Amino acid sequence: MLGGKPVRAFLLDVTGVLYNTSGNNSGIAIPGSIEAVERLYAESKVKFLSNESTATREGFHEKLTKLGFKLNVEDIITPAPVAAKYVQEHGLHPHLLVHDGVKPEFAHLPETKNSDCVIIGDAEENFTYDTLNDVFHILHGHPERPLLSLGNGKFYQRTDGPCLDVGGFVAGMIYATGCRHIELGKPAPTYFLKAVEALGVTPEEVVMIGDDIHGDVGGAQAVAMRGIQVKTGKWI
Amino acid sequence: MLGGKPVRAFLLDVTGVLYNTSGNNSGIAIPGSIEAVERLYAESKVKFLSNESTATREGFHEKLTKLGFKLNVEDIITPAPVAAKYVQEHGLHPHLLVHDGVKPEFAHLPETKNSDCVIIGDAEENFTYDTLNDVFHILHGHPERPLLSLGNGKFYQRTDGPCLDVGGFVAGMIYATGCRHIELGKPAPTYFLKAVEALGVTPEEVVMIGDDIHGDVGGAQAVAMRGIQVKTGKWI
Repeated sequence: MLGGKPVRAFLLDVTGVLYNTSGNNSGIAIPGSIEAVERLYAESKVKFLSNESTATREGFHEKLTKLGFKLNVEDIITPAPVAAKYVQEHGLHPHLLVHDGVKPEFAHLPETKNSDCVIIGDAEENFTYDTLNDVFHILHGHPERPLLSLGNGKFYQRTDGPCLDVGGFVAGMIYATGCRHIELGKPAPTYFLKAVEALGVTPEEVVMIGDDIHGDVGGAQAVAMRGIQVKTGKWI
Repeated sequence: MLGGKPVRAFLLDVTGVLYNTSGNNSGIAIPGSIEAVERLYAESKVKFLSNESTATREGFHEKLTKLGFKLNVEDIITPAPVAAKYVQEHGLHPHLLVHDGVKPEFAHLPETKNSDCVIIGDAEENFTYDTLNDVFHILHGHPERPLLSLGNGKFYQRTDGPCLDVGGFVAGMIYATGCRHIELGKPAPTYFLKAVEALGVTPEEVVMIGDDIHGDVGGAQAVAMRGIQVKTGKWI
């Protein structure tokens, strides 16, 4: 199953691999996963590659710690800080349409009234006709201004049922404005390569473990990593 | 310019052809258009083919009458009554995400909690994360349930600037659910053919007059009508 180059690092998906969502939103650790993380940490390089975009890395770390996982916050990779770094490196001034919980990830960026790009995430109740028009006004007639999205999912499971993810709002904005879209999140190749860079190895030396055959396994394989699908989370 | 079969009927676009939008939202009649409508009415069959989806035909008629136009309300064709007729003919039970102003066009349909299709229009402030999730829940996992849209525009001009039209919300829902989309409005061929049916002539005998080269002129030509673009409205 794992033929080829020696495995030097692991990328782990989080939701559906380490824990499952539960009624009270705190989640339930999947049996054996706490010990598995501990063992991988002892033997290899490990990063946690998630599309979580409603919380900061610190908030996400706190949640996982409460569930019993021992991991370092700096080993968590989420789309928001990757997006913040992208706009800084490109000298861009983003307008944000994101979840309140993830806003602190962008607090270090200088404020501006003259935005030249948009960062959009799963904003839940922050998606309104007015906030979507604010985004539209920035992108309309400016094909050079990119729309950066924190993931591009179709929907996800909330405790009250399936809910629209950011992808539909991205598709709508592309339809209305013809804007350039930069996806930051699994399965975008650039996002996987950011994780490889953080691990300091080559893609061929990395194994991605996830529950999503497309987002995790397919995305990893597309950049020459190996991918393993676990039979938890979405698989069930 | 108008070679071919004799012209027996005219289809007129309304906004940008009969009147322009103005600051107080009442509109301003375009010079000469009141007289032109009167002359066409005297000489030919005339219908008004609009994508207006924030008001009823009666409300739209009242607005045009106030501006000085003399026309019959039954000569106004808008997407909402066409959608209402469609669902009745197909035995469907629609969930509505539309503007409050157009809801009376659907008042005769029986109420239901078990919707098997969605009618979506330019709902403006009625577009929220919750109302979009309501639509998502009906379409998700039910590829047989159609999404009927009142037009499919990218954006339109409001007095406070350009605003998102229904098309982006349709594109988003198609991305998230993979649903079947039925467009009722210009430039959809079925919509033009409904107008031809109402005129009781053949498409070759109809001239469409509009300000939108794609929505009006292109749409008309696609079903073998002739199309004339006026140099008012969007043309300017």
